[in-house]
Amino acid sequence: MAKHKKAPAPSVSELLRLVPAEPVDLAGIDPRGTPGVTGGKGAAGDAQQELAVQLADLQERLYASGRTGGQRRVLLVLQGMDTSGKGGTVRHVLGQVDPQGVTVAAFGRPTEEELHHDFLWRVERRLPPAGSIGVFDRSHYEDVVVTRVRGLVPRSTWSPRFGIINRWEERLVDEGCTVLKVFLHISREESRRRLLARLDDPRKHWKFSGDDIDDWGRWDAYTDAYEEALRRCGTERSPWYVVPADRKWYRNWAVTALLVEHLTALGLEWPAGTFDVAAERARLLTAP
Amino acid sequence: MAKHKKAPAPSVSELLRLVPAEPVDLAGIDPRGTPGVTGGKGAAGDAQQELAVQLADLQERLYASGRTGGQRRVLLVLQGMDTSGKGGTVRHVLGQVDPQGVTVAAFGRPTEEELHHDFLWRVERRLPPAGSIGVFDRSHYEDVVVTRVRGLVPRSTWSPRFGIINRWEERLVDEGCTVLKVFLHISREESRRRLLARLDDPRKHWKFSGDDIDDWGRWDAYTDAYEEALRRCGTERSPWYVVPADRKWYRNWAVTALLVEHLTALGLEWPAGTFDVAAERARLLTAP
Repeated sequence: MAKHKKAPAPSVSELLRLVPAEPVDLAGIDPRGTPGVTGGKGAAGDAQQELAVQLADLQERLYASGRTGGQRRVLLVLQGMDTSGKGGTVRHVLGQVDPQGVTVAAFGRPTEEELHHDFLWRVERRLPPAGSIGVFDRSHYEDVVVTRVRGLVPRSTWSPRFGIINRWEERLVDEGCTVLKVFLHISREESRRRLLARLDDPRKHWKFSGDDIDDWGRWDAYTDAYEEALRRCGTERSPWYVVPADRKWYRNWAVTALLVEHLTALGLEWPAGTFDVAAERARLLTAP
Repeated sequence: MAKHKKAPAPSVSELLRLVPAEPVDLAGIDPRGTPGVTGGKGAAGDAQQELAVQLADLQERLYASGRTGGQRRVLLVLQGMDTSGKGGTVRHVLGQVDPQGVTVAAFGRPTEEELHHDFLWRVERRLPPAGSIGVFDRSHYEDVVVTRVRGLVPRSTWSPRFGIINRWEERLVDEGCTVLKVFLHISREESRRRLLARLDDPRKHWKFSGDDIDDWGRWDAYTDAYEEALRRCGTERSPWYVVPADRKWYRNWAVTALLVEHLTALGLEWPAGTFDVAAERARLLTAP
């Protein structure tokens, strides 16, 4: 009988990546799922510690490359329903790396000035510089989701944006930017629980308004809009990843793992110095 | 015999603040000192944990206030000799708070464009927005220190800058910005050790050049330039703090404590909501 080689375990990226251009059925993905984790929360906690060390090391290499002429950068796009944990992901995942190498841009309601430009103008301005990890907490995808669901712009405006976004992201990839797009996938029931918890906590009232519950009431319309965006803007070079997000520990583990895998793929080495180590050492040691 | 009330322990700010406008003698301040810490490194580690929780809470209040119309912001200016630990302070101290509420600006050699503007132009552009903590890793103080020591501009250029800086910082304070200026005070011997360690670590070569050792050789000239800057730009509303920095654990503890004390002084409350909690709760609970 022929011996079969055991296939290597799939990467987290492979487990969570949507197949580009294929129809997306979010109802078929369990928001409480934990793909890639065996052993539950405890095991993930240990793995998270290790990943944090790797991520810090990789981020420093990225930063070093940017400071020595490299053009690599990473853009992490976070999308998801309200309460899906975009802010928590920034705090817990990006909180693991040197703040010096991270830029965070949160996109809310556009300003007057932003509305006088095309929809990519404001995101273009917040792209990370070479050597940095940039995070978009909401992004240009709001312009094919919230604007559509709330009827802020007509179909003739939002519909061409899928193609515009694809060409724009392609350009970023061409220029050395890794575009890592993550949809935080939360269930309607978990979202209801989190909204209720916010109402119970006066420290969270400032970030709450009746609009949030209006939007929660439009869950199905948002799901439809997201499914179309994930399908039409999932490309080979800039695919979408769906991270089950009902469990915060899994969400943090998975986004950390995605970052680690994408940064590892860049194969970054420490830049060499441009000086004579022995000579500089001698100068230091012989000085009074 | 009259009973004397025990004086309260001085704050870290009081312990480390330079008296405005008085002559500064850095040789008289021990770089291995640990003012405010009793019990050494272990005790400071425990205290650091508590301070980290306080800092995260205060930062979130600051952020909330900024998102609801408040104008408060904090600018942490880090200066010090090369190897004094500015980068490490950013990583360890600011790494304790939500990256969303922190902006970090590192100022290196000015670009061509920056040189075509006055020296405050580039720092003005990197000021933190309302609700944020901004960190300057090096700052406008380079323009009265390194430019002077290296002879890049004549005295007639750098000398008037002390007054210009004071008026500019005064404006920031007027506008609701807390200006927290920290000089990381390291000894020449510790600096030599750290430079040698960098030479021994190929992962650090990219941030090293012979210029660093040239500058290290000008230790006394840098000390003189700093002493004058600390004296002439230490004002009542924007004083300088000298943090002994030979011990990294103390440096991290002290800068965290300074931030906590300055943020506490702002007396920030959680902004109130603008909605009817009971009504919103009912809407959530009655939805299918």
